[in-house]
Amino acid sequence: MKDKNSSIVPELREILATGDSKPLRDFCESRHPAVIAEFISALSSQEAWTVLRHVNTPFRSEILGYLDEDLQVEIVESLSREEIVLLLADMSSDDRAHLFKQLPKKLRESVLPALARAEREDVRCLSAYREGTAGAVMTSDYATLSPQLTVYQAIEHLREAAPDKETIYYAYVVDEGRKLLGFVSLKDLIVARRDTRVGDIMNPKVIFARVEDDQEDVARKMQKYDLIALPVLNGGEVIVGIVTFDDIQDVMVDEATEDFHGMGAISNKAHPGLANIDMRDAGILLLVQNRLPWLLLLVFMNVFSGAAIAHFEDMIQAAVALVFFLPLLVDSGGNAGSQAATLMVRALATGRAKLSDWFLLLGKEVLVAGLLGLSMGAAVSLVGVFRAGPEIALVVSITMVCTVLFGSLVGMSLPFLLSKLRMDPATASAPLITSVADIGGILIYFSIATYALGDMIRAAGAP
Amino acid sequence: MKDKNSSIVPELREILATGDSKPLRDFCESRHPAVIAEFISALSSQEAWTVLRHVNTPFRSEILGYLDEDLQVEIVESLSREEIVLLLADMSSDDRAHLFKQLPKKLRESVLPALARAEREDVRCLSAYREGTAGAVMTSDYATLSPQLTVYQAIEHLREAAPDKETIYYAYVVDEGRKLLGFVSLKDLIVARRDTRVGDIMNPKVIFARVEDDQEDVARKMQKYDLIALPVLNGGEVIVGIVTFDDIQDVMVDEATEDFHGMGAISNKAHPGLANIDMRDAGILLLVQNRLPWLLLLVFMNVFSGAAIAHFEDMIQAAVALVFFLPLLVDSGGNAGSQAATLMVRALATGRAKLSDWFLLLGKEVLVAGLLGLSMGAAVSLVGVFRAGPEIALVVSITMVCTVLFGSLVGMSLPFLLSKLRMDPATASAPLITSVADIGGILIYFSIATYALGDMIRAAGAP
Repeated sequence: MKDKNSSIVPELREILATGDSKPLRDFCESRHPAVIAEFISALSSQEAWTVLRHVNTPFRSEILGYLDEDLQVEIVESLSREEIVLLLADMSSDDRAHLFKQLPKKLRESVLPALARAEREDVRCLSAYREGTAGAVMTSDYATLSPQLTVYQAIEHLREAAPDKETIYYAYVVDEGRKLLGFVSLKDLIVARRDTRVGDIMNPKVIFARVEDDQEDVARKMQKYDLIALPVLNGGEVIVGIVTFDDIQDVMVDEATEDFHGMGAISNKAHPGLANIDMRDAGILLLVQNRLPWLLLLVFMNVFSGAAIAHFEDMIQAAVALVFFLPLLVDSGGNAGSQAATLMVRALATGRAKLSDWFLLLGKEVLVAGLLGLSMGAAVSLVGVFRAGPEIALVVSITMVCTVLFGSLVGMSLPFLLSKLRMDPATASAPLITSVADIGGILIYFSIATYALGDMIRAAGAP
Repeated sequence: MKDKNSSIVPELREILATGDSKPLRDFCESRHPAVIAEFISALSSQEAWTVLRHVNTPFRSEILGYLDEDLQVEIVESLSREEIVLLLADMSSDDRAHLFKQLPKKLRESVLPALARAEREDVRCLSAYREGTAGAVMTSDYATLSPQLTVYQAIEHLREAAPDKETIYYAYVVDEGRKLLGFVSLKDLIVARRDTRVGDIMNPKVIFARVEDDQEDVARKMQKYDLIALPVLNGGEVIVGIVTFDDIQDVMVDEATEDFHGMGAISNKAHPGLANIDMRDAGILLLVQNRLPWLLLLVFMNVFSGAAIAHFEDMIQAAVALVFFLPLLVDSGGNAGSQAATLMVRALATGRAKLSDWFLLLGKEVLVAGLLGLSMGAAVSLVGVFRAGPEIALVVSITMVCTVLFGSLVGMSLPFLLSKLRMDPATASAPLITSVADIGGILIYFSIATYALGDMIRAAGAP
C-alpha cells in the first residue's frame, strides 16, 4: 500500500541530490520502516538503493521487507553479490525466503553458497515449501525455552534472544529434539513467581498448524483463537517455524482479493500476483491476460443463448412483444443467482458455511428464491398487463418465478460443486452465473410462452 | 465461526443430563474459550447458560465474548439482573460495550444503575461511539505508564496490571492528564537496563487513531505498521482506548464480507448484520429483505433494455439474425464492466488505488478495454461470418469493441463516482453494471446495425 501523493518524495529527492549522507540518514531513521518503504516505492530502483545504502544494515533489511516483491527483486538485481549477501543476512527469515524465491535462478545459485551456513540452510529449507502453505508463510525466527528453566532464567533467555526473534511474546517449550511440549506467553512469565519452572506453568495444549496446511486455514485458526503467533510442526511433532499475526493479516487481505477477482471473472492463472499488485503499477498486458480468458469463454457460452433465441425465431416474429420482457426476465435470474453465489462463496471462505451444509442451505434457498420470485413476479405482472395484456402478463410472471428459482439454485450450488471438485468456489463468478441463467431463462421463457400462447401465436403468426 | 458437526456436542449434552458440576467444569476448563463458545452455539440458550454457570466467572465472561452477538443477547435476556451484572463485570471492556449496545432499551436501563461506578462510566462512554468508528471497536483495558518510572518499576506495574488488561505487550506513556507522550513495548522494557527511566526509552512518535476515525482506516494503519495494538486519542490528545489486532482482524473480515455482498447486489441496509451471520442461522425473511430491493430496482432498470429492444422492433422483425448475437454482445459489455468494477472496488478498499487516481486509471482502462474489445471482436467475427455473412459479422465485431469499451469505462468509473459521492464503492455491483451495459449495448448494437445495414433491412423488411 503506497502513498504516491506524498509531498515528502520531492524532499527526499532534494536530499539525494546533495549527495550528503547525514541528512539522508536522519531523514530515514526518524521514520517507521513502512513509511520509508512507501517513499522509496516512488523512486527509481537506483535512487532507492542510494537511500537504503545510507541507513544501517538491520534497518535497511527491515525497510526492504516492506517493499513490494517486484521492487525488492529489482533492487537486489542491481547489486553486487557481496551487497546481496549482507542484505539477506539481516532480513527476517520469512522475508528473506520470500525474496530468495523471487530471484532469477542464476542469481539464486550464485548467492546461496556465499551465505553463512545457518542462513543458507534456513533459506533452502523455507523456500522449499509450496506457496500457499503454512510452511511458506512461517518464519524460523521464533523463541524456544527448555522446560527446566526457571521463570527468571526464561525471561533472561528471551531478553538475550529478543533482537533476532520475530516475537518474544510467545515462547515455545521444546525438548532436546525440538519436539513441542507446550507454550508460555511473556505475560505468563512476567506474572509467575521467578523461581517456578517453565514446565510447571506452560500450557501443554498448544494450538498449532502443520507445514503443509493451507494458509487460509492457518489464518482462520489464528483469528478464531486471537493468536499473535502460531507454531508450525512437521510430521515428527518438531517445531519448524511460527506464523505471525502480521503475515496472516496480509494473507487474509490477499486471499479476499483473489476471491473478489474470482467473483468478477478475473483469472489469476495467467499472472498469479495480480492480487498483490498496486493498480497504478499493473501492466496493460498483465491485465489483458487476466481478463481475456473468461471474457472469451463467456462469449462462447452466450452463443448458446443466441442459439436458444434463434430456435424460437418464429415465435419472436409472431409475438415481438415477448422480446420486451426478455432482458428483464433473463437478467433477474442472473441477478438472483449472483446474489446466492456471492453469499455462498463468502460463507465458504469465512467458515460460515461448510461443504456438508449444501443440502440444508439448498432447502433454505428454495424458500428464499421462491419468495423473491413471487414478489418479482407480482411486480412484473403489472408491467405486463399494462404493456401487453393479461395473457402475456401471466406468462411473464410465471417465467419470473421460474427463472429466479433456476438462477438462485444454480448460483448457490455452483460454489459447493466447485469446492467439492477441489476448485476455487470463487470461480462461480457473477458473469458466469449470469450466462448460465441467460441460457436457462431464454429456454424457460419461450417454452412457457409456447405452451400458454401457442394458439394465439399460431393465429397471429400465420403469414 | 462455528463447527456444528462436532461430535463433542452430544458428549456435552450427556454431561448436562447428569446434572453434575464437576465433569462439566473439567470439560470446559481444559478447553480454549473459543472452543467452548463453538459447542455452546449448538445448544439452546437454556442449556448454554447451564454450561456457563458451572465455570468460574472470568472464564464465563471470556466464553461469552466469543459467542455470536445474537446468542449473547439471547442468553443475557434469560438471566436475572444480578446474574447479568456479575457477567458484565468480568467481561473485557469492548465486549461488554458491544453486548450492552445490543440489549433491549428496557434491560439496559435496569442493568446500568446496578453496575459498579467505574464499569457504568466505561459502558456509557464506549457505547456512545458510532458503529464503524475507532471508538466503537476500542477497549479501555489498556496499560499506561508514567515517564518517571524506572524500567524495573514499569515491569512491576505491568505485572500487577496484567490480569485486567487486554494486552501488556504495548504500554502507553502518559502525563498526569493522560495525554499520550510515547510508547514502549514490553520487549523494549525487557531488553532495557533496569534503572533506565521509561521516559528515556519510550518512542515519542506514536502511531495513533482518533475516536471518530473509520474502523477500516484503523485496520489498514495497523496492518501497514504490523501493530498488535493502536492507541485511540480524543480531541485533547488524551488516550481513551486501544484497538487490538484481534478485533481489527474481525473488522477486516466483516468489511470484506460487506464489500462482497455489495458486489453481489445484496443490500446491507435492511439488516446491517448480514455480514456477521452464519449462513446456517440466517433467517429466510432476513435474506429476502436484503436481496429483494436490488432485484426489484434492477427489474425496473431492465424495463429500459426492453424498451430499447422494442424501439428497434421493426428492425428485429426484418433481420431476426441480429437477435442471435444480442446476448453475446450485450453480456460481453457487462462482463468486461464487472471485471473493471471488481478490480477498482477492491483496489479502493485495500488502498491500492485512490480517488485521485481515477484519471490515470481511466487512461489505462481505455487501453486495456480496447485490446480486450479488439480480441473479442476478432473472435466473434468468425462466428458472425459463419452464421450470418460478412455484413452482419462486421457490424457484430464493431459493436463488440464498442460495448466492451462502454461497459469497461462505466464499470471502472462507477466505484470512483460512488466513492466521490461518499457512498460505498461496492454498490457498483456486477448486476448493476450488467444492467447498465445491457441498455448501452442494445442501443449501440442496433444503432450500428441501422447505420450499416439500413438498405439491406429496408429491402428485406418491406412487407
